[in-house]
Amino acid sequence: MADTVVRLARRPAGAIMPEDFVLAPVDVGPLAEGDVLVRPAFISLDPYLSIQVYGRPVRGVAFAPGQAMLSRMVGRVVESRHASLREGDLVLGMGPWQSRFVVAGSALERLEIQLDRPELHLSVLGSSGITGWLGLHRIARIQPGETLIVSGATGTIGSIVGQLAKRHGCRVIGIAGGPQKCAHAREKLGFDTCLDHRDPAFAERLRGTEAQVYFENVGGAVLDAVLPGLAEHARIALCGMVAHYDTAREHRFHNLHLLLEKAIDVKPYRVSEHAGHHAAAMADLAAGVSAGDVMCDHTISRGLDSAGSAFVSMLAGKSLGKSLVKLDE
Amino acid sequence: MADTVVRLARRPAGAIMPEDFVLAPVDVGPLAEGDVLVRPAFISLDPYLSIQVYGRPVRGVAFAPGQAMLSRMVGRVVESRHASLREGDLVLGMGPWQSRFVVAGSALERLEIQLDRPELHLSVLGSSGITGWLGLHRIARIQPGETLIVSGATGTIGSIVGQLAKRHGCRVIGIAGGPQKCAHAREKLGFDTCLDHRDPAFAERLRGTEAQVYFENVGGAVLDAVLPGLAEHARIALCGMVAHYDTAREHRFHNLHLLLEKAIDVKPYRVSEHAGHHAAAMADLAAGVSAGDVMCDHTISRGLDSAGSAFVSMLAGKSLGKSLVKLDE
Repeated sequence: MADTVVRLARRPAGAIMPEDFVLAPVDVGPLAEGDVLVRPAFISLDPYLSIQVYGRPVRGVAFAPGQAMLSRMVGRVVESRHASLREGDLVLGMGPWQSRFVVAGSALERLEIQLDRPELHLSVLGSSGITGWLGLHRIARIQPGETLIVSGATGTIGSIVGQLAKRHGCRVIGIAGGPQKCAHAREKLGFDTCLDHRDPAFAERLRGTEAQVYFENVGGAVLDAVLPGLAEHARIALCGMVAHYDTAREHRFHNLHLLLEKAIDVKPYRVSEHAGHHAAAMADLAAGVSAGDVMCDHTISRGLDSAGSAFVSMLAGKSLGKSLVKLDE
Repeated sequence: MADTVVRLARRPAGAIMPEDFVLAPVDVGPLAEGDVLVRPAFISLDPYLSIQVYGRPVRGVAFAPGQAMLSRMVGRVVESRHASLREGDLVLGMGPWQSRFVVAGSALERLEIQLDRPELHLSVLGSSGITGWLGLHRIARIQPGETLIVSGATGTIGSIVGQLAKRHGCRVIGIAGGPQKCAHAREKLGFDTCLDHRDPAFAERLRGTEAQVYFENVGGAVLDAVLPGLAEHARIALCGMVAHYDTAREHRFHNLHLLLEKAIDVKPYRVSEHAGHHAAAMADLAAGVSAGDVMCDHTISRGLDSAGSAFVSMLAGKSLGKSLVKLDE
């Protein structure tokens, strides 16, 4: 069976569309010494990828038209010329959106624990979980009894962050798009409340909240509406700004003065720069999952040909939890 | 001679105008035990006062229409019922915009050093100097060899910050409104360069600057234009946002995503919360002034009846350095 790859077809002019991606045949090429051939089981679709799609770098990498899309994946080694990886090993790492690909074995992490659901390595027990944990505990340094507002509340990171904060003894106010997502956050994720940013009374509902921490995944009008709901000396863990990745969009702010007037710190962060805390994060996440306190929804599309439209669907807020592409075995 | 006071006449609807203030006769009242009667020599006009004029609190105080304007002043004790203050003492503290006023002596600081120019206690050797020093050294923690961008470059704090940074071995890029101010920053304040934010090529000139620190006094379109000129992990000391104090104004941003993509910390701060470093700041400022490395311009208007229009003039960017009202002896 011929291998296929999803490439960026063109630089999007405005909002990203399925037509910005193209499925093409590809030759996986030979393995050099130290290489492995990997068949992805699940490919991770993340909002930050749109930064690279628009041509701006994340960890030094941007996508040029014609290039293969590249994201985190979990998959199986199907052939190995690497000393410590064998056929059948479950591995985690960066990979192209491709049916099979060759990569240096040293760039992959071999997963010692064989989960029933390997997709969890890309969500709650993977970098999404670690990202949320670090933002909450190392950046915002949230304390029991504090109030957290989290945007993108039913997204991967937002949902994990809210559940971790509940487990930590905090009050959690989610923000999501639409009444179904809000109901999900309250009923399934256990948030104290969840506000619909499409509700005309949204900004009004946030006033007087006096939250000590805001975990930001969105930016734009949501950020502007949240600022009046933050307490003096609140901390904003700036994890994502999906509303801003298309830089052709202009954002209108009325409340930025509150950063100064309430002395609110804005703290972006990079997971790779907190490597010393990844093990603690994983241990706490695993404990939360075991205890049944932390779960993660997965929105799974099937086959590489669905990847572009699944990615666009996630950006449009139509997915719940972690968006993944599942490849045929 | 009857005493007079400048009151806030009304809540401004948009930009603050001289008509928003009114000069009125006032009775200074009797002195209780512990009180002093003070005649201000200089009253400080500061951008942050407009936050209070618009009705929002600073350090718990906002101005209601009919209330006296209140700011920092340096003046002389003309009558005392306080044990450790005597007639003729030079004092520093908060006071109404008033020809003479009664205040608890305990609320004032007696100035032991009698400067030839007491107005310096309100500028480079006072809270403006301390504010700049703290932002640079405690908040941004600037290092020799780094590049600083500072907005409001010819304002009190901006001009002091730039000179302190030069003295510390940094490259300094000022931002000011108009070619005269920019020439002043380069020629008199010794900045490496100064960019005119009214220049159509302003944003373009900032690109590629790769500054490690941005000292922010302005916000709005200036902030948006500076973001592309900041380096990875740059620090923004958020000292003022004069463009935002009139909250009826809307601000359009295109570049806020760079906060995330470059991991730029936004750090507002309050001088009162760093009291342990005020003495070090004062010592360094005094050394800089003595060495001739740090100076401050003063734009002085005469008489209380000029206070409202002088304040508006400062907000419109027409002053240089510290704006003060000098009262008749």
